[in-house]
Amino acid sequence: MAVHSSPSRLQRRARPVGLVALVACAVAPLFLADPVVAGEGMWLPEQLPAVSEDLRAAGLTVDADRLADLEAPPLGAIVSLGGCSAAFVSGDGLVLTNHHCAEGALTLNSSAEENLWRDGFLAANRTDERWAGPGSRVFVTTESTDVSEAMFAARDGAADDLSRWEAMDRQEKALVAECEEGGPWRCRVAPMFNGTRYLLIRQLEIEDVRIVYAPSEGIGFYGGDEDNWRWPRHTGDFTVFRAYVGPDGVPAPHHEDNVPYRPAHHLEIGTAGVSEGDFVMVAGYPGRTFRYRTADEMRFARDVSTPWQIERMQDVLAILDARMDEDDEARVRLNSMRFGLANFEKYSRGILDGITSSGAVARSVSREQAMREALRATADARALEALDELAAVIERGQADDQRERLFSWMRWNVRMLGAAGTLWRLSGERDKADDLERDAGFQERDWPRIRERMERLDRSLDAVADQRLLAYWMAQAALLPETARIEAVDALLERFAGEDDPAEAAAHHVLSGTALTGPEARIEAFEASRASLAASDDPLIALARDLSSLEQEILERSRARAGAESRLRPVFMSVLQESAGTELYPDANGTLRVTFGQVRGYDGPDAVTYRPQTTLAGLLEKERGEAPFASPPQLLDAIRAAEPSPWHCDALGSVPVNFLSTLDTTGGNSGSATLDRNGRLVGLLFDGNYEAMASDWVFDPVRTRSIHVDVRYMLWVMDRVDGAHHVLREMGVEPSFISAPEPAPVPTRRGRRGRR
Amino acid sequence: MAVHSSPSRLQRRARPVGLVALVACAVAPLFLADPVVAGEGMWLPEQLPAVSEDLRAAGLTVDADRLADLEAPPLGAIVSLGGCSAAFVSGDGLVLTNHHCAEGALTLNSSAEENLWRDGFLAANRTDERWAGPGSRVFVTTESTDVSEAMFAARDGAADDLSRWEAMDRQEKALVAECEEGGPWRCRVAPMFNGTRYLLIRQLEIEDVRIVYAPSEGIGFYGGDEDNWRWPRHTGDFTVFRAYVGPDGVPAPHHEDNVPYRPAHHLEIGTAGVSEGDFVMVAGYPGRTFRYRTADEMRFARDVSTPWQIERMQDVLAILDARMDEDDEARVRLNSMRFGLANFEKYSRGILDGITSSGAVARSVSREQAMREALRATADARALEALDELAAVIERGQADDQRERLFSWMRWNVRMLGAAGTLWRLSGERDKADDLERDAGFQERDWPRIRERMERLDRSLDAVADQRLLAYWMAQAALLPETARIEAVDALLERFAGEDDPAEAAAHHVLSGTALTGPEARIEAFEASRASLAASDDPLIALARDLSSLEQEILERSRARAGAESRLRPVFMSVLQESAGTELYPDANGTLRVTFGQVRGYDGPDAVTYRPQTTLAGLLEKERGEAPFASPPQLLDAIRAAEPSPWHCDALGSVPVNFLSTLDTTGGNSGSATLDRNGRLVGLLFDGNYEAMASDWVFDPVRTRSIHVDVRYMLWVMDRVDGAHHVLREMGVEPSFISAPEPAPVPTRRGRRGRR
Repeated sequence: MAVHSSPSRLQRRARPVGLVALVACAVAPLFLADPVVAGEGMWLPEQLPAVSEDLRAAGLTVDADRLADLEAPPLGAIVSLGGCSAAFVSGDGLVLTNHHCAEGALTLNSSAEENLWRDGFLAANRTDERWAGPGSRVFVTTESTDVSEAMFAARDGAADDLSRWEAMDRQEKALVAECEEGGPWRCRVAPMFNGTRYLLIRQLEIEDVRIVYAPSEGIGFYGGDEDNWRWPRHTGDFTVFRAYVGPDGVPAPHHEDNVPYRPAHHLEIGTAGVSEGDFVMVAGYPGRTFRYRTADEMRFARDVSTPWQIERMQDVLAILDARMDEDDEARVRLNSMRFGLANFEKYSRGILDGITSSGAVARSVSREQAMREALRATADARALEALDELAAVIERGQADDQRERLFSWMRWNVRMLGAAGTLWRLSGERDKADDLERDAGFQERDWPRIRERMERLDRSLDAVADQRLLAYWMAQAALLPETARIEAVDALLERFAGEDDPAEAAAHHVLSGTALTGPEARIEAFEASRASLAASDDPLIALARDLSSLEQEILERSRARAGAESRLRPVFMSVLQESAGTELYPDANGTLRVTFGQVRGYDGPDAVTYRPQTTLAGLLEKERGEAPFASPPQLLDAIRAAEPSPWHCDALGSVPVNFLSTLDTTGGNSGSATLDRNGRLVGLLFDGNYEAMASDWVFDPVRTRSIHVDVRYMLWVMDRVDGAHHVLREMGVEPSFISAPEPAPVPTRRGRRGRR
Repeated sequence: MAVHSSPSRLQRRARPVGLVALVACAVAPLFLADPVVAGEGMWLPEQLPAVSEDLRAAGLTVDADRLADLEAPPLGAIVSLGGCSAAFVSGDGLVLTNHHCAEGALTLNSSAEENLWRDGFLAANRTDERWAGPGSRVFVTTESTDVSEAMFAARDGAADDLSRWEAMDRQEKALVAECEEGGPWRCRVAPMFNGTRYLLIRQLEIEDVRIVYAPSEGIGFYGGDEDNWRWPRHTGDFTVFRAYVGPDGVPAPHHEDNVPYRPAHHLEIGTAGVSEGDFVMVAGYPGRTFRYRTADEMRFARDVSTPWQIERMQDVLAILDARMDEDDEARVRLNSMRFGLANFEKYSRGILDGITSSGAVARSVSREQAMREALRATADARALEALDELAAVIERGQADDQRERLFSWMRWNVRMLGAAGTLWRLSGERDKADDLERDAGFQERDWPRIRERMERLDRSLDAVADQRLLAYWMAQAALLPETARIEAVDALLERFAGEDDPAEAAAHHVLSGTALTGPEARIEAFEASRASLAASDDPLIALARDLSSLEQEILERSRARAGAESRLRPVFMSVLQESAGTELYPDANGTLRVTFGQVRGYDGPDAVTYRPQTTLAGLLEKERGEAPFASPPQLLDAIRAAEPSPWHCDALGSVPVNFLSTLDTTGGNSGSATLDRNGRLVGLLFDGNYEAMASDWVFDPVRTRSIHVDVRYMLWVMDRVDGAHHVLREMGVEPSFISAPEPAPVPTRRGRRGRR
């Protein structure tokens, strides 16, 4: 059953495949492209030897076996920030990632008076480095163990699907607990190939992360939302952190006595960069893809869930924008949420557009028909039955979707409600005697992080916006069909039915009446027992409490579905695997992956060709002097000065800024190191083009492209614009700044430039 | 003095030059480009033999002498519609031009019930052809005579600049009267090279023009304002008219007895089209360029007049849009004005952007410094003095500009005020005994056209919008500086000073109180004497009368300036010519010109390359199903049917839709026939790319491109979409429609699709 169970299979020449090759074999080609040039495939490190032939053909000079080694460079230098990727670039723990991945840390360190996000930051020395905040982490993957047998044993011994989920959950927690025992580890069990295989991943967790250098918004966020998911780009989307550990070298909470972490490996900077056609690869932590979903799931995403989500996000963005226009402090606090939402809204539209215009649903339907025909031909009744049952489980989930989706958006979007819900649930889980019985995310190991979240909530909370958002979501809940109501909200709205706007009045009652404002009150509630919370008459705690029975119901339904899926999806996958007849890579799930391909442009819409590199000359041409195309004056001056620099590319007649590759990446890959054929860092992945959004469902090798900051632009900015010469030197690069005797004072405060 | 006075000079190998080469010789190169590939130059037909070497090098196979012949094909088939260009494409007078050039005629024939602009039109037979309206004309240029000596005599014999203008005006009218005598001619004296030379142009004037076929808005205006001045394009911007004359073959007013005009020449259709790199040329009537203006004039356009104009147009567009949203009939009537204004607003922004970003002002300053230095070196005191005086005259004109510009915009924009002003002025001019003393535009030859305008005014008039626009312009006039007031408006606003909105009240008083509504009342006023109009108490006639003294003052000032410029600009031109050291082409002035170059894409902004051809496949990709990207279903069906057709281009894998060329064109060129190396029609010029807007001032051969409808798209649409098979046959093209026994009924009525 397991796709990778036989070594002979792993040794077989593999090719990037996914949906593309599957369809090519089973039904009809989806896209035509040179399989070496096309970068499809988010490979597990352990799969790299199996694709070594393709790696070599694409231009890699490093040995594939060495490349697969988590404890050797370059993979040994690749880290996760939890949601973003990054890499060590110095022996003293410098971590290079995207500017947009540092958004939270920069916002946390900003106020209306001092705005690190807007104005940039350069620590004059190590003492000056700013703590990125209690939630910031650096995770270093050190080990990956196959635990399929243990998980299968739990799965296959259960009587029904809910207890199946519970048995697997217990098994998973036991494996994690054992893995984390006695060390600064963070472990997880990651299902691969839709549960065909389970890997136990162990990561070193570094808890003290500090900001060393960030360019200003006019560089790091150049192009803003307008250019997001677009090419051509001119964004200096990079930032430098440093990982700190206790004086004994072991990870410890933030403390002034902590010292820089000395990683076993860090990346060498490939100062020469790459050119069109060159081999590149990206190592990082892609979050989620859906390449092995059924046609029904794709159709539901296209016709129901994605359109609903887009409309809700547009409403929420309008609420945030109105509030951010009213108040400068609110603007700073809401910036991060707004950025994330705007990004996700655009992404959702891209998904919708891509699934629709590619005709992928119809192709998936054909693919599944072919799969069933093949099963009928071999009279595989059990597999056919499993596919039918999977379809029924999926349909059941879709019926529950609207209420569940609304509920989880409300909980995520209304920050105070989210906090109260967490506190309520925590109090119940903490009452359980056995830590393994506690829900994932609420075990002892999670308590410190929950506490941190409660402490730092205010930094990104605007009470006015929060109340408007609660009113909005309650009004949305009032529109749910009779068969899927949220009773706690109904009851609350009923209480205020006499008001002009019952939702607004109810939201005011809940959030103006709560005492959970401020970290102290929340820490108190964090420490409170379930009994005392149950007795509380705080209106917010009351709402969280009243919502908890629905939350419990939702949890149980989704767990039962997950239990069923753990049986059924592997069948779907193995049938798919058979019809593919070649090696597959697993869907992204936040684990370390490597994708490789080349620097390549693409043909855009009719009559438009996109070349793969942009330059300083192009940046100057794009410059408008107002957001989101407002570069800092120092940058414009440096371009116009046109002094010779080692980062100049003669073929382009300028310094390269961003480049395109054929690589297969997605959210979570942001900040991933882009490596050349020798494993040197030549850029940072930070975005994809418009077509890349849909690639989470359907990978189109003809037009899907990843977007990278060119290493030469980063070096040029640090050298010529921001005077970050000591950071450059620490990265092993000699500054070449020549015309001014002293670097410009940094950070430079400039006039406030509003974003749209 | 005259640039073309010596034959030897005309014989010299000439090259497209203009500002580019001038600067290249005198100061520094403006742009670098292969002079053969670059299409700069709007050549007089008589200049073509002088550029024959370049024509041959670019690929022309027709003899340049024959190409210069107005009475031979292809130039013999090229016509003007007055504002647009066109060409005869059948022996029975079919005229092919742009859809947007037929906008007025289609609107005139439309109502809320039957909308030819929106739904398209195909005459089933000749009886069914619709009269394009009293203002529609076809002009065929038959002769061009050098009258420089006569004009110079008038110019050089005058005592001062105002009488210089008057003497030249009299001379011009005498030449025109003589030229038009005894035939259906329309003549004009056209100054070339800023008055260095004068040509008397004689045109045959055909007065009865009818609509034969127009595709629907979803084809002819595909992309709408959004795509206007943009590439890539997918617009079927073409329409077919037919010219009619009296039964005796002589042009006559519209009458049912009229018969199709049989032109001496019509173009052959080049059904094979053209490909990237192929020679193309355009013959047509470009309206106006400013390539030989001074640096001061360019600076004024950049800093003062263009920004002012953009703001006013945006205000007016907002007024029109609001009104068009209110009322469907108003939408039809205002459509043409709105289209023209939106186009001009975008054009003005393009000009502003181009002049600014090209740094052309600074280069012009250098050019003029170099010119003066050369004059000082040769101690040419007279020429230096003339340049100084020209600068003073230009400065004087700029001081008067704001009031004059506002006045003429108000008169043009408020349709009823324009009509009343014309009627008032006409009554005065008609009182003059000598026709030659009458102002140009108000001579006997002009009276029938003025009468026609009065008759058809209502077709494009919306009384509500007209009143709002009058209020707007009066409010604008109230903002003029104390030194340049419009007294008649001041007096009127003073009368309503007590109202909430004096401008609105005054506009209401004038336009709700006038009796000039309807053609009968206006014809009555058209025939009325000056004395009776002077005695009228109609508030609109009163306003026109009160404004007339300012109008007279403005006329005299501008005439005195023009008199001075007629002396001084030729000096500037000849100095420019000397420093250029090579042949120049004259600025566009609405006379017949030929420009030649090649089918070529271009490099857009950083990392973007535009290829020169779009296709049906690209159209399908662009299609949104809503305006301005809403194709008619028949067209989408025909694309999807993908039946083989003679218009398919194998290299592109589809039917070509639009293409780019390096040609030098501007407003007025719209509808120009695009000809291949053999003089066959391979497309219709209909637009330029964004960079082409600024080319009226500064021609950038690297990025300036003209945009054409590919002949194969026109044929395919007529054949496969609209079933215009008899029109195709008349153009000498055999229809290839194969899959349906009968063409679809045309015009097809579809649901109303609002434009933005």
